[in-house]
Amino acid sequence: MESERGALFDPTFGSDALAPLVGDRAWVTAMFAVEAALSRAAATVGLVETGHAEIVTTTATELGANLDIARLGADAAAGGNPVIPLVKILRNEVAEAEVPATAVHPGATSQDIMDTALMLLSRDALGVIEASLDAASAAARSLALTHRTTPMAARTLGQQALPTTFGLVAANWFSGLRRARTGVAAVRRACTVQYGGAAGTLAAVHPHGPAIAAALAVELGLARQTAPWHTDRTAIADIACSLGVAAGTIGKIAGDIVSMSATELGEVSEDAPGGSSAMPHKRNPVAAVTARAAARRVPGAVATVLSNMDHEHQRAAGAWHAEWETITDLLRLTGGAAHRITQSLSGLHVHPEEMARNLDATGGALLAERVTAALAAHTEQAREIVTARCATGAPLDSDPAITAFLPPSTVRELLDPAAYLGHAPELVDAILAEHDLDTEHTTDSKDSR
Amino acid sequence: MESERGALFDPTFGSDALAPLVGDRAWVTAMFAVEAALSRAAATVGLVETGHAEIVTTTATELGANLDIARLGADAAAGGNPVIPLVKILRNEVAEAEVPATAVHPGATSQDIMDTALMLLSRDALGVIEASLDAASAAARSLALTHRTTPMAARTLGQQALPTTFGLVAANWFSGLRRARTGVAAVRRACTVQYGGAAGTLAAVHPHGPAIAAALAVELGLARQTAPWHTDRTAIADIACSLGVAAGTIGKIAGDIVSMSATELGEVSEDAPGGSSAMPHKRNPVAAVTARAAARRVPGAVATVLSNMDHEHQRAAGAWHAEWETITDLLRLTGGAAHRITQSLSGLHVHPEEMARNLDATGGALLAERVTAALAAHTEQAREIVTARCATGAPLDSDPAITAFLPPSTVRELLDPAAYLGHAPELVDAILAEHDLDTEHTTDSKDSR
Amino acid sequence: MESERGALFDPTFGSDALAPLVGDRAWVTAMFAVEAALSRAAATVGLVETGHAEIVTTTATELGANLDIARLGADAAAGGNPVIPLVKILRNEVAEAEVPATAVHPGATSQDIMDTALMLLSRDALGVIEASLDAASAAARSLALTHRTTPMAARTLGQQALPTTFGLVAANWFSGLRRARTGVAAVRRACTVQYGGAAGTLAAVHPHGPAIAAALAVELGLARQTAPWHTDRTAIADIACSLGVAAGTIGKIAGDIVSMSATELGEVSEDAPGGSSAMPHKRNPVAAVTARAAARRVPGAVATVLSNMDHEHQRAAGAWHAEWETITDLLRLTGGAAHRITQSLSGLHVHPEEMARNLDATGGALLAERVTAALAAHTEQAREIVTARCATGAPLDSDPAITAFLPPSTVRELLDPAAYLGHAPELVDAILAEHDLDTEHTTDSKDSR
Amino acid sequence: MESERGALFDPTFGSDALAPLVGDRAWVTAMFAVEAALSRAAATVGLVETGHAEIVTTTATELGANLDIARLGADAAAGGNPVIPLVKILRNEVAEAEVPATAVHPGATSQDIMDTALMLLSRDALGVIEASLDAASAAARSLALTHRTTPMAARTLGQQALPTTFGLVAANWFSGLRRARTGVAAVRRACTVQYGGAAGTLAAVHPHGPAIAAALAVELGLARQTAPWHTDRTAIADIACSLGVAAGTIGKIAGDIVSMSATELGEVSEDAPGGSSAMPHKRNPVAAVTARAAARRVPGAVATVLSNMDHEHQRAAGAWHAEWETITDLLRLTGGAAHRITQSLSGLHVHPEEMARNLDATGGALLAERVTAALAAHTEQAREIVTARCATGAPLDSDPAITAFLPPSTVRELLDPAAYLGHAPELVDAILAEHDLDTEHTTDSKDSR
Repeated sequence: MESERGALFDPTFGSDALAPLVGDRAWVTAMFAVEAALSRAAATVGLVETGHAEIVTTTATELGANLDIARLGADAAAGGNPVIPLVKILRNEVAEAEVPATAVHPGATSQDIMDTALMLLSRDALGVIEASLDAASAAARSLALTHRTTPMAARTLGQQALPTTFGLVAANWFSGLRRARTGVAAVRRACTVQYGGAAGTLAAVHPHGPAIAAALAVELGLARQTAPWHTDRTAIADIACSLGVAAGTIGKIAGDIVSMSATELGEVSEDAPGGSSAMPHKRNPVAAVTARAAARRVPGAVATVLSNMDHEHQRAAGAWHAEWETITDLLRLTGGAAHRITQSLSGLHVHPEEMARNLDATGGALLAERVTAALAAHTEQAREIVTARCATGAPLDSDPAITAFLPPSTVRELLDPAAYLGHAPELVDAILAEHDLDTEHTTDSKDSR
Repeated sequence: MESERGALFDPTFGSDALAPLVGDRAWVTAMFAVEAALSRAAATVGLVETGHAEIVTTTATELGANLDIARLGADAAAGGNPVIPLVKILRNEVAEAEVPATAVHPGATSQDIMDTALMLLSRDALGVIEASLDAASAAARSLALTHRTTPMAARTLGQQALPTTFGLVAANWFSGLRRARTGVAAVRRACTVQYGGAAGTLAAVHPHGPAIAAALAVELGLARQTAPWHTDRTAIADIACSLGVAAGTIGKIAGDIVSMSATELGEVSEDAPGGSSAMPHKRNPVAAVTARAAARRVPGAVATVLSNMDHEHQRAAGAWHAEWETITDLLRLTGGAAHRITQSLSGLHVHPEEMARNLDATGGALLAERVTAALAAHTEQAREIVTARCATGAPLDSDPAITAFLPPSTVRELLDPAAYLGHAPELVDAILAEHDLDTEHTTDSKDSR
Repeated sequence: MESERGALFDPTFGSDALAPLVGDRAWVTAMFAVEAALSRAAATVGLVETGHAEIVTTTATELGANLDIARLGADAAAGGNPVIPLVKILRNEVAEAEVPATAVHPGATSQDIMDTALMLLSRDALGVIEASLDAASAAARSLALTHRTTPMAARTLGQQALPTTFGLVAANWFSGLRRARTGVAAVRRACTVQYGGAAGTLAAVHPHGPAIAAALAVELGLARQTAPWHTDRTAIADIACSLGVAAGTIGKIAGDIVSMSATELGEVSEDAPGGSSAMPHKRNPVAAVTARAAARRVPGAVATVLSNMDHEHQRAAGAWHAEWETITDLLRLTGGAAHRITQSLSGLHVHPEEMARNLDATGGALLAERVTAALAAHTEQAREIVTARCATGAPLDSDPAITAFLPPSTVRELLDPAAYLGHAPELVDAILAEHDLDTEHTTDSKDSR
Repeated sequence: MESERGALFDPTFGSDALAPLVGDRAWVTAMFAVEAALSRAAATVGLVETGHAEIVTTTATELGANLDIARLGADAAAGGNPVIPLVKILRNEVAEAEVPATAVHPGATSQDIMDTALMLLSRDALGVIEASLDAASAAARSLALTHRTTPMAARTLGQQALPTTFGLVAANWFSGLRRARTGVAAVRRACTVQYGGAAGTLAAVHPHGPAIAAALAVELGLARQTAPWHTDRTAIADIACSLGVAAGTIGKIAGDIVSMSATELGEVSEDAPGGSSAMPHKRNPVAAVTARAAARRVPGAVATVLSNMDHEHQRAAGAWHAEWETITDLLRLTGGAAHRITQSLSGLHVHPEEMARNLDATGGALLAERVTAALAAHTEQAREIVTARCATGAPLDSDPAITAFLPPSTVRELLDPAAYLGHAPELVDAILAEHDLDTEHTTDSKDSR
């Protein structure tokens, strides 16, 4: 029977590159990698012979790459997790080379292997997501620089408000992406080894528990544990939350692109818009649409993780198991959204002439605030006068109630969008300066959360 | 590259039997089935030649079974859904038999095919879930009948309260399962065809739109549409909600079984408990644990569906796409939970002697309410007296403040759990009578929601 | 200390009329009403003297209206729910009239009172929400009838697709609102009394339990219970889900109105748009915006209810308590959204001329599908030709590749939106006929779920 | 009309102390405080006369304390937020002192005031939550120290696994609480001023925008903005997530306490357990139950915040409004849960004798792992032998298959829980050392996120 779940939709939602890092094979590879590293770590304190650990490593690597996953999955059902049959298989294999059972899985419980494997998967996938967020923010930064002073209509509650610049819009996208990237990087660096044994006391390997745990962290390149964290799921929840925030940021940008791509606005268009089998004129912003689709599935999954932090006693009866696929789904969806928004931003065509056309749509009413302010120096009825005129739809520069105080040419100057961009260009500079892409990486090792 | 996502965990979470019904191949098969049925439906009004529709059907069936899914998935990314490349492939194939392009996908839009395919998947998967809920409720019913009068401690806020019977506990499980099944059956029957064309007006096939839609429903065995429902997602949300309620019910039962299986309670045990590689004495209620794990992932996914009901204008830019995998995940998880709880309930070992032991744990304090009530006929301080005695932990039948009014033998009779089961046995009967498994099915066709 | 939470935001989110029905005073009134009804119900089987029940009723009514809520709330903390102090107060009050403690709260547990009170609150609030949904759907129906043939651009993925009519858009809104109303009405009618006693066995009032429960249902106008449902929370979850679906429907409509009110579209405007202190020209669709805001808070709360269906054993240690405010929040938010969308729809100004202007925005490309179809009768390159021309932005009726087959006048006829509305007007009729507002109410008593 | 929502349930869910900090009056006070600070900030650059700013401050303070909230709320509905009427009222009041309208709300938009007020509320409430988490962790730390070596049964999947110590259990609670506190403190310190004007460009106060924003931050003690963040909701989402993680941690602890307080376990009991009107023997762990109830409502609300990060364009039409009550609910619920868990932990009675009794419940099977390990030195059938014996329920020290290799006295030693605590005591030390309560505060200013 086929079992290719994901192949149909992963490319659409942008996660085809990431999927293998969080798929079944990645899980199996990671679990065997943890078992191998554990044997080597135990060897550092003499609990396992070094030669045995080497055989375990070789065997585990081979099994990780080739073991029949469907068979392992079927065998996992009886005990409720795949580590139980996996350990049995590994022990059987190494037994042929006279390696004793005690050289495999020393002092460990299934959760040690699953949690550490999940940390490995997460670390790697988070790294890919960071790279995507870097690429997306580089694209947003480029848009911000190029369009630092390109006027467009700011829109609030769906209505045109005042002018802004597309550069500032893009700078705000950039800001969100950088903050999301900071959050993702923090949880990536915090990915921690798990080693506690059956009851979280490391009793079976006493007095070597902490030393083995430390060696295991070094072997796998994960952060060291202070103590086993079997039921303190802060780290898992932090990963989920950082992905939730990143997805929220991506969803906002994607929504803006979809909206600005609307036929009536036409202010941006994607480089490779999607067509329609039925409608040859369609120019669908497919990358943004599918980034948004992926991002919109994330909050519910974050709630799933948070509501499953209640791990009972020393190992949860369900809440733990509920994390496995939920975390990998979160990585897949957020990574997919990051990839798709990068595609959208990287090739985004910006149409300043359409932005100008839209700015002109209200015949100047957009800058009514500015006329009101100028008029207020002359009359206390400034706001009422301007509001009344706006309501008629007629031009402000020919309203006698206004021109009684301000000459028409002054009114027209006040209504020039390009002359009323406020601090927009400087705010672009400030935002880009805060998140300097070149220097940010060098401080990586000092970040903390 | 492998792409077997799901094979590792599906058996554990009980969804291996269901997964193929909602997996990638099922999607592809269903999409082709819809296209074939649409050509035949269009043939009924003369828009497509009958012979052409037959060739489309044969070709679609063949492609549905064999098309390379990874290839289709990759091609789907450009347009944001798999229907666009799928139609192209189908048209190319039938072109070899001189069937014109117009005989394929007549008057349809991608969403027509995706939505109708999702209805097919849902209908079939919901049917399987119903069968699981039937099996689970039959098992619960059997437990309720067998243990109609088996005394056990009712527990409120984690504390022993008063006696009840295990039969009543099981009858309440049964009741929840029957109500969940009713909800699932209602949304299954409501699975409706979707046919609206590019703008939901059926313009391309005017004046044959409604006739084709009706014929399509007949071809596929789905309910007829009153009108296209491209952006009225009530039906999708109803499916999600019915699964959410079913999962909630299963989660409650699973939690009770886990808790009653605890070492200290020992009131039930699963027929095939899971072992532990490290702890030979463990008897983990694995079926209940994994049912619970699956069920706990459902509420977040329901929220995803509900928060994606906001399909903009005439086709949503993301909210629609967000439904596809979320609905199939919901079917998979709820179906898996239903299967696992059936396993747990079907083989559940009940230990009346442990129930009796636990009932005795408080030395009678459990029935203090009853003594209080009897004592209240004699003194207004009844409650204070009994409370004070309970606080000491000493037996009630030797408290002079009590025996001043009630002889010790009377106190002991009042403290007999089996004599204070209230209406428990009759309530079992009432619950079982309300949901008569034999007659319920016959009213199936009259149900509506 | 003030404690007026809600007064600041309730009017904005439309729930000021509903808030009192689900607020603290409503809870207190309802709890006392249940206690009073319970005493009367117990009197029907002789457990309480009729005269005593009358005194309890009078006293409870008085206390319900006037009891200091902050005091009750403070006293509730010790036991974890307000029924414990409430019963004490009621017993103390009636004791002055020589009514014995046993005449109050006979055979009941706190959850009986809380659950039944919640059912009373829900029933009444759901009735108000139904009325709002009726009003909103009447407004949508009126729009659908008036604009049955008013052409506008259908938009898919944010892009103009083909013409539709505003009447069909409004009819789809109507359809969603009617289905939401059907769901809300079903759960309203299912609001069921709760009476089970400390362990759900009705032991304290044996053999009168079922008779009292039935009398209590009659007294309060609630549905009868088959058995106590202390830990089968299907009814609670069904209420949450029906509100979730209703809110989703409202959110879709509100989103459409916000989007169609955008400065650049201008197709609708609210009767009482909101202004801005800073921008006199703003015409914010405030009713739709705030309906949407309220609706967007609902899915998370539904997930809360579903994830709290896991009531352990015979009374949940937290999951039960988590329902109280969540359900009233859901009623408040959904009712508020229903009220606000009614305001928006009832006074909606429709601008057919702007719809026509927008339809013309693409210079006919919108109907390219139709030209493609006509051209396809002449050449296999139809799609390529039209797509290429659309890409240039030049008119289709002057493309030699097209006019080689179709005369320019034919192309222009094909590009007339009003001539390509498909089945839109008939679909309006079909939708309105399915949900006949006049006849629907008469079938009310036969509905079931 | 009364409008005291919250008074009834706030004390039960622990939020009565926090509620006033996030209630309607707090909102009004904060909004006026922001307006006053803004006038003073504008005075620092000469846009407002200092004397006028003083009058605005005095007036705003007075109005903040006394304004009729219900009236303000009613007036807010028209524009969709309370700032519009609030500014009008403030301008009217100061006009009596000849202060011009321009001295109030200079350059601001409603969102500037609402967002900054929400930051003030959040900062203060988060501070209270931190203090609660400090108190809770101090209590947990004390339990960990006292019971560093108190043996109890570790439980996995609801089954007794191996011995651990209650100190380690409490140390893990402590660890979670400290990490939650670190997260909460980070978002508290990140609470940032919002000042952007109608379009986020600060156009109305150009060139003074950044200077006023900086002065406003100083006036209010909030972090400075790099730029307005009207539609980058990372800060809001971060607050929600930190509360989600804190609530998850509290829920885990509360669940453990509820479970360990169960009649059959009896390992801990609360200092002030709740009684029952019906059952005098009940000892409900009410503080833990209600902490859990509050905590269980948080994940859904976090999902609401995350799914509302998609603020369209330059101000969201609904997503922004959806944050106001959701964030205050999150503060209230998490703060309430923190308060209740502090009550539970601070007075927790620990019963080592019950822990010892439970450890003995399996007659030594609990340490079967250890016997297996010892036996494995003698026979390859060790695991099979021990498993078989455990299945019979008979003692291990009289199994000939075991005593053939290990003398009964050795078996009994191996089965002594106190001799198999592994690293538990040292892990307690390591956890407590990592989060040193005394030194942690001094590093407060260096924390970053």
